[in-house]
Amino acid sequence: MAVKIGLVGTGTVGGGCIDIINKHSGAFQRHLGTDIELVRVCSLSSAEAEAHGVGELFTDDFHDITNDSDIDIVIELIGGTTVARTVVLEALAAGKNVVTANKALMATHGEEVMSAAKAAGVELAFGASVGGGIPIIGPLKHSLIANEVSTVMGIVNGTTNYMLSKMSEEGMSYEQALAEAQAAGFAEADPSADVDGLDAAAKIAILASIAFYSRVTLDDVYARGITTISPTDLDAARDMGYVVKLLAIAHRTPEGIDVRVHPTMIPVDHQLATVNGVFNAIYVVGDFVGETMFFGEGAGAGAAASAVMGDVLEVARHLTQGVAPIVGCTCTDELPICPITSLSMKYYMRFTASDRPGVLAAMASVFAEHDVSIHSMIQRGAGADGTVDLAYVTHVAREQDVRAAIDEICALPDTVKGEPSLIRVEE
Amino acid sequence: MAVKIGLVGTGTVGGGCIDIINKHSGAFQRHLGTDIELVRVCSLSSAEAEAHGVGELFTDDFHDITNDSDIDIVIELIGGTTVARTVVLEALAAGKNVVTANKALMATHGEEVMSAAKAAGVELAFGASVGGGIPIIGPLKHSLIANEVSTVMGIVNGTTNYMLSKMSEEGMSYEQALAEAQAAGFAEADPSADVDGLDAAAKIAILASIAFYSRVTLDDVYARGITTISPTDLDAARDMGYVVKLLAIAHRTPEGIDVRVHPTMIPVDHQLATVNGVFNAIYVVGDFVGETMFFGEGAGAGAAASAVMGDVLEVARHLTQGVAPIVGCTCTDELPICPITSLSMKYYMRFTASDRPGVLAAMASVFAEHDVSIHSMIQRGAGADGTVDLAYVTHVAREQDVRAAIDEICALPDTVKGEPSLIRVEE
Repeated sequence: MAVKIGLVGTGTVGGGCIDIINKHSGAFQRHLGTDIELVRVCSLSSAEAEAHGVGELFTDDFHDITNDSDIDIVIELIGGTTVARTVVLEALAAGKNVVTANKALMATHGEEVMSAAKAAGVELAFGASVGGGIPIIGPLKHSLIANEVSTVMGIVNGTTNYMLSKMSEEGMSYEQALAEAQAAGFAEADPSADVDGLDAAAKIAILASIAFYSRVTLDDVYARGITTISPTDLDAARDMGYVVKLLAIAHRTPEGIDVRVHPTMIPVDHQLATVNGVFNAIYVVGDFVGETMFFGEGAGAGAAASAVMGDVLEVARHLTQGVAPIVGCTCTDELPICPITSLSMKYYMRFTASDRPGVLAAMASVFAEHDVSIHSMIQRGAGADGTVDLAYVTHVAREQDVRAAIDEICALPDTVKGEPSLIRVEE
Repeated sequence: MAVKIGLVGTGTVGGGCIDIINKHSGAFQRHLGTDIELVRVCSLSSAEAEAHGVGELFTDDFHDITNDSDIDIVIELIGGTTVARTVVLEALAAGKNVVTANKALMATHGEEVMSAAKAAGVELAFGASVGGGIPIIGPLKHSLIANEVSTVMGIVNGTTNYMLSKMSEEGMSYEQALAEAQAAGFAEADPSADVDGLDAAAKIAILASIAFYSRVTLDDVYARGITTISPTDLDAARDMGYVVKLLAIAHRTPEGIDVRVHPTMIPVDHQLATVNGVFNAIYVVGDFVGETMFFGEGAGAGAAASAVMGDVLEVARHLTQGVAPIVGCTCTDELPICPITSLSMKYYMRFTASDRPGVLAAMASVFAEHDVSIHSMIQRGAGADGTVDLAYVTHVAREQDVRAAIDEICALPDTVKGEPSLIRVEE
């Protein structure tokens, strides 16, 4: 008996899923004994659906899928937290298993949809919500479960990694890199979810929830994007032995979960430093396994569709063999979230400062007053406007002290022009 | 009801498993609802067992485990294919689930033990047999199943990677690097399984069987080790833009499975080129997911024990929830193995040649006769004994042509001294 699939959403990833089913369903039957059949496809665009040969499977009303008693698994690939949430909840309520790639939904309404799946006795799989095609949720929930995980950290947004790679390698400005990413199809017309760090924040919320067995939602994640990063900062970073990446970071600390997304300076010889372009990589540290890293294409039709269909086949295999859902919600612990101001780490700061005697000394004394000890400093040539660039990297300091020092320096008369740059440093 | 575990073998990995159970069994119960209890430990060394506080669980007769009707899961960590095979087969016959890290057993008697597990209706898990703690078998059997995999390739032996790193970075000879690896505990007193490539061959046989759904055994794998690699070759490789790694390689080709282990030159900017020391990394290419890589510690107590206990918890979770074995043998296809002589690729060759007129021309004409086209050549300074080092990298050529050319060159009068080096090149 074939496991019957309904697909909602025929964008890039949905199209990739249809292609996989068309190309490989014979192999799935031969290799896994799993017969899957696509029986209904919902899309707002009949043209988009037709481009993948959907034919008479097409509908533009998702209720034709959620209400179809023949359908065993609903694939939700609309994205967002409005219609997608309704589709998922209605499908679950109708007793259907759901596979989704929707990180925003899982990071915002994860508890609601997981509970609905449990109540209905069905599976809800979301392996494609993080890392494109990179297997990461599966390994965290299975192969690595014997570990207490201390860190999950990675490059989980391909768009911003592509832009930072371009800015770093080719000296492009933020605006140029964005335009190029849009032209290459790696950035949306409205790029804010990517460049403001919210996409990465949703993903690290999901990873942290799984790794630490404690619920972390999108709202818990401190998120800063790359919009204020300049080629000047990338140059200064390189001169100091670092590269800048938009990292999504989650650490287990004695005070709770430290979870955040922001541009981060990492040493040039760090495993994550050489992950360029649209590639993603996720680094996991466990108390027994030590350091592991998972690398692959973070975006693109094929990679995300690979992850979605991996979940579909897993659920289909369970259905075929009469296996009840194995892994439900695992947020059994209730760990607090550390406020960003409680952090201590190294910081990079860059000021555009007046090129006059006494400025360096004045700034140095403010740092000292606030217990911020400087590890290295680079001054770059005088600007035509009588300014110089002063880039500092601190020793480990408290975030609240660093912020207070910056505020005080900015308030000094005739010292700093414009907004300073602040980039956190992970060793 | 606790799932009861019997452990056979208290070496490095077995000790790590006991440590994990002691440290984390409370967490497993809280997070996964899985209660595991170690009830019997078999070892030839009561002192080794006692070092992990085994106490009255100790036995030196494995039958006390395989015959104990209370035991649900047997962990086999003896290694080898003699006693280990008996332990595994007797445990399976007694209806016990088995978790093993034994690559030699799986690569040699995989079909026999998988069939025995199927006949008994129990699970046989072997995730720790490849890549230490790196999740790779799980992802191949689950997250990546929607793909047709074209390549699995990696650094899967930590000992030889440590030695090659030392030889390359510090100019050590093979003998020095081996002595250092032995002193550091990374190489056995008898290092042959590592340095001759047989450990890596067993691992790639297992990975190829899973990735290509076709049985590949240890005997099918062409294996060459690192014993003939010299610092001179590593230097020449670097000058030509390559590093040398002992790679385990499996490609799907139109003619069948190309599977082999040998020292391999890869470009310095290849993802695998920066994997140094005892780290392992496995690179997988699928038709939809594209390139992925899995990186981590390939050896050591903690990493391998993490993988073993990941399997134990998975099986225990299935037992607790009454789930029948999900994934058995998946070797449904019968693909042929490509003979090594049918390969075409690039080759590095180095000869110690007479430093006299006419040698280069004579060698060039032999290459030409055999259709071996040279991409680059480096000649290094004359030796005290009137010889020069000639290092060549070819364009893509047929292995049989390259071997014939080398044989003919070696037979030329007064041309080549000693054995030439031959290293295959993957781009």
